[in-house]
Parts: sequence; structure tokens; C-alpha cells
Amino acid sequence: MSPRPKRTDYKFRVEVCFLPDQYPLYAQDMGVVVVIDILRATSAMVTAFAHGAERIIPVATVEEAQAYMGREGYIAAAERNGEIVDGFQYGNSPLAYRDGDVRGKTIVMTTTNGTRTIDLAKNARKLVIGSFLNLTALSDWLAAQDENILLLCAGWRGKFNLEDSTFAGAVMDRLLETGKFGLEEDSSIAARYLFMAAKKNFLGILKAAPRRRRIEQLQLLADAKYCLSSDLTDVIPIMEEGSLVPMRTPLLVP
Amino acid sequence: MSPRPKRTDYKFRVEVCFLPDQYPLYAQDMGVVVVIDILRATSAMVTAFAHGAERIIPVATVEEAQAYMGREGYIAAAERNGEIVDGFQYGNSPLAYRDGDVRGKTIVMTTTNGTRTIDLAKNARKLVIGSFLNLTALSDWLAAQDENILLLCAGWRGKFNLEDSTFAGAVMDRLLETGKFGLEEDSSIAARYLFMAAKKNFLGILKAAPRRRRIEQLQLLADAKYCLSSDLTDVIPIMEEGSLVPMRTPLLVP
Repeated sequence: MSPRPKRTDYKFRVEVCFLPDQYPLYAQDMGVVVVIDILRATSAMVTAFAHGAERIIPVATVEEAQAYMGREGYIAAAERNGEIVDGFQYGNSPLAYRDGDVRGKTIVMTTTNGTRTIDLAKNARKLVIGSFLNLTALSDWLAAQDENILLLCAGWRGKFNLEDSTFAGAVMDRLLETGKFGLEEDSSIAARYLFMAAKKNFLGILKAAPRRRRIEQLQLLADAKYCLSSDLTDVIPIMEEGSLVPMRTPLLVP
Repeated sequence: MSPRPKRTDYKFRVEVCFLPDQYPLYAQDMGVVVVIDILRATSAMVTAFAHGAERIIPVATVEEAQAYMGREGYIAAAERNGEIVDGFQYGNSPLAYRDGDVRGKTIVMTTTNGTRTIDLAKNARKLVIGSFLNLTALSDWLAAQDENILLLCAGWRGKFNLEDSTFAGAVMDRLLETGKFGLEEDSSIAARYLFMAAKKNFLGILKAAPRRRRIEQLQLLADAKYCLSSDLTDVIPIMEEGSLVPMRTPLLVP
């Protein structure tokens, strides 16, 4: 079991940043930033696009989202601390976007961790959204980029979390296999170790007692199972002029 | 391979904080804080006490250390960015404390990461110093505490590092085996995964190409090998009124 790339003549780097607060320490020379908030913001975004949403505008505050409520063609979505904010119909549950009517809509969304992380990285040359739901499409697209890639985990209330870092390790594992990418950071090596330890049982890593209690409290076990499903869609959300849109010409999964 | 404790009726928590900046998020309800800066500050401190140093005063600035230079009974030590600060004889190389004459001396020390981390946690009820060099003595003493325990990694220039987090995983592994301690944080689960992946080959985890380059640049390979040696001493440095002293009555290794 070796978490290190076998070649050292790679052309580009792929690195993992465990926490939004650490972004400035890892952002230098990065051409592509992948924002990761598996439970649940980036899973919800990918789901919304997979079901026909036209655009997602990430906003920092509940008030900004509220301003769009009831406007024709818009959906206002707000989540704080794992719950839909009072008065909103949508939060960050991906199942709501799967089951709701989002086709052709613009979603104005604020979440506890995810949208804040997107805001931090909004000046990246390319900003895309990652989740298990689009893992293969995303990895294939990333592998075709001639850029350094940063996998930016949203964490949980400012703390490291396992699902984001393990997902980052999964993407990293695929990119290192190409031989085109290498890693420099200890966090990247650690993420790959985590992925290798957990890959047979993604849901298992969330079954640690304390985390399960939290998930049950929030009644999001159905969401969690869905968020850990791989490759339900090829869609890759990408930032364009401050909004997320589905990438026009994704590389299809071979 | 299961990184989770089997019992959920533990009495106390043992948790890992990967970064000094994250300390406030993990400090609540913690009775014992273990400061960890394997390469090299806490390894140097343990070594100095193992060789008879009487007291270590951690200070934040080079100027504070400089004020003690040449004073009878004192050694002034200063390291910045992996190197001894100009004009000082001691930095954070543990081998210098092993080979120098530190018996009975008070060492006034400032380092890039380690002393800053100690300063952050100085108000903990009990603050002790961890390294592979005192791994078993420290783990046995910790296992006897009726307190929540936080393993606080110093990191490297504000970033996550593998040697501190893997060491934390090693201590955690021993404490979880007692059944008296459990964990709640994702960072703690991740540290244990890292330890389980790396335990057969501690030096190996530092042999990743980028890290080895850095270690070679700093000419600290000999230091690194020494710092990853387990159980060279029973001494446990503990904070008393702003200074570190060797614990008077450590539990001996059985």
C-alpha cells in the first residue's frame, strides 16, 4: 500500500486542502479548484443540474437568498446548521432537488459551509463542483486539464471532516494513476491514505458512532446514502461570472 | 481494519487537533493537552530533559531568547524555518541537546511552530509534551488520567503534517485500547487511520519525494531518523507556571 506516486516526473500537481481557512496557504499556482462539500451542498448542486437546473447563484447570506423568493424562474434555498431556514422550501438536501421541479430554474443558494467555500475560491481560473455523484465525469475532466488542481474541502463548521477528505483522496487516486499529476503536500498524502483505507466502504466511514448520532439527529441518513452514491450523473458545475452553470461540453465517461 | 472504538460507554474523550489555528474549536472540556511537534521542537525538548535539563522556558520571539544568551545556567535556543538563528548555538535539533551539555541548565527556546503551539495551549489544566522518544511513557501516563485529552499537532508553517498527525494516531490507538477513552471528532478517526496505514514504517511516511527533498535541503535526515525512534526515555515534560519541567513522578513503563 503506497500512497505516493511512482513517478516524480509529473507535469502538474494535485493537492488537497482540508479546510476553507487554509485555502490561502494552498491556493498559489493552482489553476483549477474543486469545491467539495459532500454532506450536502455540492451534492445538492450536482443533483440540481442533473435534473435540469439552469444556473445556481451561491450567496453568502440568508437575506440575499430571500430577495429572490417568489420571483418567476427562481428558487431560493437556504440552509444553516443542517436545517432548512424557516420560510424556505429548499435547503441543501439533494433529494429535494431530485424530487422537486428545478428544470430551467435559477437557484439562489446559501449554505453553512459550501457556499462560503465557493466564495473563498471564486477567483480561481476554473472553479468546479465535486461530489461522489459526478466522481468519474469530474475525474476524467480534471485529468484532461493542463493545470495544477486543488481539491478544496468545505469541512464541517470549520473542522476537518472525513467525507470531504476521503472524496478528495478518491479523485487524487484517479489523477495520480494518469502519471501526469503528482503531489507535494502532506495533506494530499493523508487524503490518499484515507481513501485507500475507506474505499471498500464509503458509507462505513460515516457510521462511526458520534457521526451517526449527528446524522440521525438531522434525519439525513437518506441524504447521506444518496450523497455517497458514485456516478449518478456526468454533469460538472463550473463557475462562470459568479454563477455556477453545467459545463457545456463535458468529456463523456468512456 | 476498524478505526473506531468498539465500546461506546467510554468515560473520557481523546481527540486530535491537526493545526494550532484550530485549537479553539477543539479545546472545550479538554483537561490535558499534549503538544506535538515531531520535527523537531517537542523531540528536542524531550531529549533535553532526558539528558538532564532542569527547565525549558518556551518564548515567542528570538529577542526573548537572546536576552538569556551568556547567562550562567541558561542556554538560549532559537530556530526559524528549520535553521538555527544566527548567533545561537542551539536551535531545535534534538541531537544537539543529546550531544551538548544541558545537565542542570534552563533552556530558553523559541521555534517556528512548536513554542507557538505551546503558547496557545498554555492555559490548559495540564499541558505535556509528546514525541516518539517518550511515546510509551506518555501513553501510559495519559491512560491513567481521568480527563479528556487533546492531542494538539503543531503542523508545518500552518499546514497539516503527517508526522504529527501519525504520532497522534499512535497515542490515540493506545488510549482507545484501554476502553476508558473514546473519540468524537473526524480528525481523530482520520489520525487513527493514518497511524494504522503507517505503523509498520514510520520513517517511510517521510520518504515521500517532496518531503524528503525538504528534509535533505535542511540536512535534517539524521534528526528525522532520531525523532522517529520510539521509547528512548520515560521523561514527560509538563508545564508548571509557564515553564516546562520533567514530571516528578512519571508512571514507569511496566
